[in-house]
Amino acid sequence: MTEAELRKILERVQCKQISVGDAVKQLQALAGFLDLDFAKLDTDREHRCGLPEIIFCEGKDPKHIPQLLDQLRTNASLVLATRATPEVFSLVKRVIPSAIYHEPARIISIGEPKKTQGGTVLVLTAGTSDIPVAEEAAVTCELMGNEVMREYDVGVAGLHRLLAKIEKIQSANVLIVVAGMDGALPSVIGGLVKKTVIAVPTSRGYGASFQGLSALLTMLNSCAPGVAVVNIDNGFGAGVLASRINQMNL
Amino acid sequence: MTEAELRKILERVQCKQISVGDAVKQLQALAGFLDLDFAKLDTDREHRCGLPEIIFCEGKDPKHIPQLLDQLRTNASLVLATRATPEVFSLVKRVIPSAIYHEPARIISIGEPKKTQGGTVLVLTAGTSDIPVAEEAAVTCELMGNEVMREYDVGVAGLHRLLAKIEKIQSANVLIVVAGMDGALPSVIGGLVKKTVIAVPTSRGYGASFQGLSALLTMLNSCAPGVAVVNIDNGFGAGVLASRINQMNL
Amino acid sequence: MTEAELRKILERVQCKQISVGDAVKQLQALAGFLDLDFAKLDTDREHRCGLPEIIFCEGKDPKHIPQLLDQLRTNASLVLATRATPEVFSLVKRVIPSAIYHEPARIISIGEPKKTQGGTVLVLTAGTSDIPVAEEAAVTCELMGNEVMREYDVGVAGLHRLLAKIEKIQSANVLIVVAGMDGALPSVIGGLVKKTVIAVPTSRGYGASFQGLSALLTMLNSCAPGVAVVNIDNGFGAGVLASRINQMNL
Amino acid sequence: MTEAELRKILERVQCKQISVGDAVKQLQALAGFLDLDFAKLDTDREHRCGLPEIIFCEGKDPKHIPQLLDQLRTNASLVLATRATPEVFSLVKRVIPSAIYHEPARIISIGEPKKTQGGTVLVLTAGTSDIPVAEEAAVTCELMGNEVMREYDVGVAGLHRLLAKIEKIQSANVLIVVAGMDGALPSVIGGLVKKTVIAVPTSRGYGASFQGLSALLTMLNSCAPGVAVVNIDNGFGAGVLASRINQMNL
Amino acid sequence: MTEAELRKILERVQCKQISVGDAVKQLQALAGFLDLDFAKLDTDREHRCGLPEIIFCEGKDPKHIPQLLDQLRTNASLVLATRATPEVFSLVKRVIPSAIYHEPARIISIGEPKKTQGGTVLVLTAGTSDIPVAEEAAVTCELMGNEVMREYDVGVAGLHRLLAKIEKIQSANVLIVVAGMDGALPSVIGGLVKKTVIAVPTSRGYGASFQGLSALLTMLNSCAPGVAVVNIDNGFGAGVLASRINQMNL
Amino acid sequence: MTEAELRKILERVQCKQISVGDAVKQLQALAGFLDLDFAKLDTDREHRCGLPEIIFCEGKDPKHIPQLLDQLRTNASLVLATRATPEVFSLVKRVIPSAIYHEPARIISIGEPKKTQGGTVLVLTAGTSDIPVAEEAAVTCELMGNEVMREYDVGVAGLHRLLAKIEKIQSANVLIVVAGMDGALPSVIGGLVKKTVIAVPTSRGYGASFQGLSALLTMLNSCAPGVAVVNIDNGFGAGVLASRINQMNL
Amino acid sequence: MTEAELRKILERVQCKQISVGDAVKQLQALAGFLDLDFAKLDTDREHRCGLPEIIFCEGKDPKHIPQLLDQLRTNASLVLATRATPEVFSLVKRVIPSAIYHEPARIISIGEPKKTQGGTVLVLTAGTSDIPVAEEAAVTCELMGNEVMREYDVGVAGLHRLLAKIEKIQSANVLIVVAGMDGALPSVIGGLVKKTVIAVPTSRGYGASFQGLSALLTMLNSCAPGVAVVNIDNGFGAGVLASRINQMNL
Amino acid sequence: MTEAELRKILERVQCKQISVGDAVKQLQALAGFLDLDFAKLDTDREHRCGLPEIIFCEGKDPKHIPQLLDQLRTNASLVLATRATPEVFSLVKRVIPSAIYHEPARIISIGEPKKTQGGTVLVLTAGTSDIPVAEEAAVTCELMGNEVMREYDVGVAGLHRLLAKIEKIQSANVLIVVAGMDGALPSVIGGLVKKTVIAVPTSRGYGASFQGLSALLTMLNSCAPGVAVVNIDNGFGAGVLASRINQMNL
Repeated sequence: MTEAELRKILERVQCKQISVGDAVKQLQALAGFLDLDFAKLDTDREHRCGLPEIIFCEGKDPKHIPQLLDQLRTNASLVLATRATPEVFSLVKRVIPSAIYHEPARIISIGEPKKTQGGTVLVLTAGTSDIPVAEEAAVTCELMGNEVMREYDVGVAGLHRLLAKIEKIQSANVLIVVAGMDGALPSVIGGLVKKTVIAVPTSRGYGASFQGLSALLTMLNSCAPGVAVVNIDNGFGAGVLASRINQMNL
Repeated sequence: MTEAELRKILERVQCKQISVGDAVKQLQALAGFLDLDFAKLDTDREHRCGLPEIIFCEGKDPKHIPQLLDQLRTNASLVLATRATPEVFSLVKRVIPSAIYHEPARIISIGEPKKTQGGTVLVLTAGTSDIPVAEEAAVTCELMGNEVMREYDVGVAGLHRLLAKIEKIQSANVLIVVAGMDGALPSVIGGLVKKTVIAVPTSRGYGASFQGLSALLTMLNSCAPGVAVVNIDNGFGAGVLASRINQMNL
Repeated sequence: MTEAELRKILERVQCKQISVGDAVKQLQALAGFLDLDFAKLDTDREHRCGLPEIIFCEGKDPKHIPQLLDQLRTNASLVLATRATPEVFSLVKRVIPSAIYHEPARIISIGEPKKTQGGTVLVLTAGTSDIPVAEEAAVTCELMGNEVMREYDVGVAGLHRLLAKIEKIQSANVLIVVAGMDGALPSVIGGLVKKTVIAVPTSRGYGASFQGLSALLTMLNSCAPGVAVVNIDNGFGAGVLASRINQMNL
Repeated sequence: MTEAELRKILERVQCKQISVGDAVKQLQALAGFLDLDFAKLDTDREHRCGLPEIIFCEGKDPKHIPQLLDQLRTNASLVLATRATPEVFSLVKRVIPSAIYHEPARIISIGEPKKTQGGTVLVLTAGTSDIPVAEEAAVTCELMGNEVMREYDVGVAGLHRLLAKIEKIQSANVLIVVAGMDGALPSVIGGLVKKTVIAVPTSRGYGASFQGLSALLTMLNSCAPGVAVVNIDNGFGAGVLASRINQMNL
Repeated sequence: MTEAELRKILERVQCKQISVGDAVKQLQALAGFLDLDFAKLDTDREHRCGLPEIIFCEGKDPKHIPQLLDQLRTNASLVLATRATPEVFSLVKRVIPSAIYHEPARIISIGEPKKTQGGTVLVLTAGTSDIPVAEEAAVTCELMGNEVMREYDVGVAGLHRLLAKIEKIQSANVLIVVAGMDGALPSVIGGLVKKTVIAVPTSRGYGASFQGLSALLTMLNSCAPGVAVVNIDNGFGAGVLASRINQMNL
Repeated sequence: MTEAELRKILERVQCKQISVGDAVKQLQALAGFLDLDFAKLDTDREHRCGLPEIIFCEGKDPKHIPQLLDQLRTNASLVLATRATPEVFSLVKRVIPSAIYHEPARIISIGEPKKTQGGTVLVLTAGTSDIPVAEEAAVTCELMGNEVMREYDVGVAGLHRLLAKIEKIQSANVLIVVAGMDGALPSVIGGLVKKTVIAVPTSRGYGASFQGLSALLTMLNSCAPGVAVVNIDNGFGAGVLASRINQMNL
Repeated sequence: MTEAELRKILERVQCKQISVGDAVKQLQALAGFLDLDFAKLDTDREHRCGLPEIIFCEGKDPKHIPQLLDQLRTNASLVLATRATPEVFSLVKRVIPSAIYHEPARIISIGEPKKTQGGTVLVLTAGTSDIPVAEEAAVTCELMGNEVMREYDVGVAGLHRLLAKIEKIQSANVLIVVAGMDGALPSVIGGLVKKTVIAVPTSRGYGASFQGLSALLTMLNSCAPGVAVVNIDNGFGAGVLASRINQMNL
Repeated sequence: MTEAELRKILERVQCKQISVGDAVKQLQALAGFLDLDFAKLDTDREHRCGLPEIIFCEGKDPKHIPQLLDQLRTNASLVLATRATPEVFSLVKRVIPSAIYHEPARIISIGEPKKTQGGTVLVLTAGTSDIPVAEEAAVTCELMGNEVMREYDVGVAGLHRLLAKIEKIQSANVLIVVAGMDGALPSVIGGLVKKTVIAVPTSRGYGASFQGLSALLTMLNSCAPGVAVVNIDNGFGAGVLASRINQMNL
């Protein structure tokens, strides 16, 4: 918090341009976080890390989510909640009518997507049941200001489907590859491109997939170097990573 | 043991064509196993399962191995020892001069390979460090009477190497695919062929391969149906399985 | 896609024998896959791998399944959906009245089973709770054109039940052995026959079965060589594998 | 420690029948343990549990072992050390010339075996590499006063070897079944007998045996009730358990 | 099946003492199993193993259970079903009015318990949530003809509760010790007695108990020799094992 | 039980100050535990361990809980039940109207909290979904007589939130640090303070957190020495541990 | 590549039907790999993926390595061998005198490093025993044409060491963070920067680090989004990934 | 670094009381760490955390250790190296003749132990092979200024050995309990005392101890609350933790 920033807020209070309550909120935000009863919202994250704090809805009390989002948006032009159910969205919608629900991605966004820059992020899946995770990644990328293309259901069991898209694959700037079961797709794609492959294991599959462990290990052991791995079903993390890489050196 | 077999042995004892000791051995063998001091050699296995009992050398006292092989070969035209070190072979060679050592496969064979029949078994590896396991599979197949071809180092990180061999792959009768690390090769090949793919995980790789667990899980979760999986590094088991399948319905 | 095939379709469009829409579908199919909104149906798989693409229903949106099946059957004489609940079937039935539900196997089939050829596939289970997985394997084999026999509940805790069926077991061409808990049945059967044993672990059992891990490891470590292992509860994969082996060299 | 015992020791000191040093040792032993510098030898264990404290040599300083055994034998008619290497034995032999080394079992015994009572304990192994663990169990039983029979190498891959011994198996009073790899033998034997089967997993096998985990899980999940499981490679524990059961109700 | 048995059945058919249908059933039973549509009931098990085949209800179709029990009881004086819910019992009760439900043990019994013999089996638990598993063991023992005592909630965190029962513990003939969480109770009891301790891990506990894995490993690694371990939550297996041991040498 | 205590109870019976029934209860309690039908309540625990026996509600029959608490409170000034649902509380409330429900902590308390002594216990969480576990720890500490402060949502992804609290952290006497996902917070805090850090892993997170295993391993491997780890989600255990340490040497 | 194919291309160049540039492309495409006896060297990889095939020395026969490198360098300006021991290097040196050994990184390089471009890659380690893995990453980056800085031993147990470098950290273009034990460093750094963090778990630590599993899980579960994870001890993979990201969009 | 401190150093340089080189070192130390070539020694740790940075020798280059210790001791009155082999000690001894080797604990110390304060720390082991880990804990405590008592080999298999020491146990201020195999000792002791129990699992035991996993899980699941767990074989961590707790509130 610079002295200038501080002075400006106090002057506006003096002039009654803003209420004391609003001034408190703004001062806290300048301190880097909002100290709520049950949370410390990281209002400095966008400045520091390039993206605002995100609300991960799973395991949180649904009643808290509209309140958290409402606080966050006073300090950020774009606010996101991930793993949001339709029920959570209807609670949010009541408080923040401008909220948008990206249903297959289970993401709520409030505010404007960032300005698009960089190359293309291509999101691929091995099968159709990997789509929800892929959409979480794709929508995250779009909101972060990336052009996104999708190619779903191009798993290695039908290599011709993949080879039919090879030019698109080789021309993408960053690739997000989502796969469950054997998790083999990132290895194959990693051997075809010069760009970074972000591998996302999913928890889909028969018994010995052990909720995504199988695909996770496959991807970590990829024989193609240059493959980055994220957590099981973590489409959001993959999206953030892809966006950062895609917008490098601009 | 048929009556005729029994009668024949006894008549030869009567005529002193064989000694009493030899007759005991032959009678025991007809009973289905030789009851040694420290082992019960399954002399009936070839008749029952189509292949003789095999000596798995790891964890056995090297001194016992020549003796076991010597016993087995009195009842079988072909006898094998797997996972044999050069040291074990030199012990065997002293007792059984006709023994042959297939070095990269770590197999000792005694007697004639079976007559070749069936189609071709193609053995592929993802990398060069999978070769010892692949050789164990290939030599087992050859000794069991199969024509064997090899294509090593065609892993998915360089798909063109694999695609260059696609006709050979599609024309093989049975495929043995050996891979460590991500274990992705069987899934890709399984999507290209009509025939059975036998997947052999190997224990090669970086830390999170966990001594072959990664490749094993990948193969069990292969998205291409029709893939048969065997134990980690078990080239011999893959060879026996391939031979049985290759010689089906002849 | 040969030039001849292409020419034929275009001529039929020219002659208005087929609509432009139908021609699009057929051209896509010749390209090897149908590019739907949310999936790329592999229409070339039957030609390449000997069996059409299968719809695995678990984890898919039930609304998509009738549509997927409807697309697939335009390019295949036999179409399958596995792990289908009765609810999924009633959705399918509305769109495709000729669909058949194989209830214990949880399989929907559309079209004619393939012509029966090859020897007999014998499906065995250790216990009665392994039956749903066994039926998935058995029905898959039947639809793929194999004669199937069943012997359920012959686990090793009552060896006489197994030995009473030994001739049937030894006369089968391929054996599928389904077992949970200790998973010991494939090892015993593998020691009795010359033919391939396909071992299917199931997720049935007390605590330390760890959802099928126990049976899976047992089968991978079978002391009888020539045992092929598939994923936990993967009756369909076992059925495809058995069918391929049973129809080898014909 | 009864008053009578105490009085007796003190009177012998008074009469100089024993030295003060010896009296100290005897008094400590009556207290239930000998408090050495680096150990508390449980001298009451034989009275309480029916067998004396045992020295488990692995991970102990070899120099300590002769001293520990020497202390223990002043309060017990029979003293054992398990997992003893030949090197350890030669150290012990120097101090206690009457010590005996049971080589394949890796056991050192000092003193008289207990008087034989009860029925027969039958020790079986699936393979030949399970023999060292089996011998540890068998020798423990013999020293504890049990008649022991052995049948090694009767694994389920050659069921006729097992069935040839079925009368012996059914007539034994307690069975110890030692197996690595698939660990299937106890399930089969458990289904053939009325008596207790003690299952001992061994760490022998290919990769996915994971140092005995595979056999351990198989045995815990045995479909035959009445199977008792002990730790991997724990022949000694199996021997003690068998001895206790065999000598019940006498 | 002896000739005498066979003759007797046929004579009773001839005299119309039994119907042809009943004779078929009795002949099948003499063959060792009843070949139902979906199961092979092991009618020889009581003769061979000392206890009849048991119906494990979990994972079975509830409709099948009354039928299975009805078949079994024609060949056995005592028939059991384990893991039976109240719903299953009400289905059974309708068909077999004499069936009894042992509610805390979740066991249904039909017929007379065996005649009591042998010493006392003492069933202990570490906590109160281990009681359902303990009751399954205790009721099994009672039905198999053993005198059973119970001491519940004597875990090691309050050692005085255990020590208050030490005479009872030392006087029992066999001990079944049921514990979740740290699973430490069998080790402590194993150090106090001469008799066999049967350790039963349960799936109760906080996160890192991993559904009973923690207690299972503790028990397998018990530092007191002579501890027999069974599967997680397997009260029935512990009961059968205890009964066999308790009735040894009578 | 001292003679004086015994004499006092008996005299009160004689004087009819208490009934015989109450005297029985008090005498049993002096013996160290109350022997109920289904439990042995450890009434000596407070004297021995400094805290009374606690009722862990999960997995217990809700009907038993009011009865257990009612028994315990006759011998303790403060009685607790953990992991209590609102349903359990309403059952308890009916029997014991003075019972208090600490809702976010899921704890029921009956009686007076202990007198506050020692320094401050500071409870921190990495995120907001760790709060229920943190509250269980905090309320336990408060009831045990400790001053408690809370700082929630100070995870390492926003280090400035943590550093803003550094004086508070360094001035606390004991720290309880609750974290799921990467579990990294205790390592950072452990490097900042001289006092004990109690690390509590939670089961919150994406797929590869494996229900808290990830955070548990992180904490056990903390590179800052002086970190004590408790079970996953075990807020109560952390609270007891913190209270003991906080009240050392007073 | 057949002679005919070669001849045809050259004739078309001669006739100026295609340009020299096009001929080069066609020749490369037709070749693509060198088919050695025991390996298929992927000579097209640099063109396709931006880096040449690398020789991973572990598990390879040392005699093969000089030969492999010699072949590879005919098609690439820079050739690498990783995990090379000093022994391997001296074998290589004899054949290729210009080879350079980067000792702490265990890398052999032959040829010129690529031209430096992009921003700075900063390699950090938590401790000193992580340095060999960090050096493998750093040297790989340098050879791939990146400016590299190092900050070793800045683990979270001494946060001031890290904070002292915060400007350097925030000004780097890509960060490689290497850590064993608790693996917490990437989470902390991920919360401080806008750029990609590549997390490399190492196998260093006490027992419950389970050879790097602990650090791997921590990193996958990092609460800071935008963290890319690679395999345990895989410094080379991290280096390639960092280089690709660092040179994006140039 | 206060201004006063800084001024003092500079004045001493000015007066040539210290050399420029020494001043550099002191200034760096005031900055909180020494920036060596391969390490950043945390010279502020003693001030911040109450104990100096420790050198963990495993996995470090032995040549670096004397140098690291030499640097550290310029800023600390007591310096430690753990897991030091005799070879490492002889290297250190050459450079720092006053270094002391605590052999069974594998610790090197340089400088004076801290002044003793607080109560007694009692270190107990279950068996004799746990002693090296226990000694690491005990010597750490002694050097940190605690009075230490030891009771080794009091495992639960001989409870009377433990009960004979109960007064000593109950009078200790902090208890460190070291155990491998079943890891049951901390649960028993935790139920006997009011003070903190620090549980240290060791990697000693038969197969299914899985290198200490068994004992670790047992301790985390201890049914006695108030048990703190540290990493497998981590005697040093236990010692630091015990020292902190023992010296609370003084």
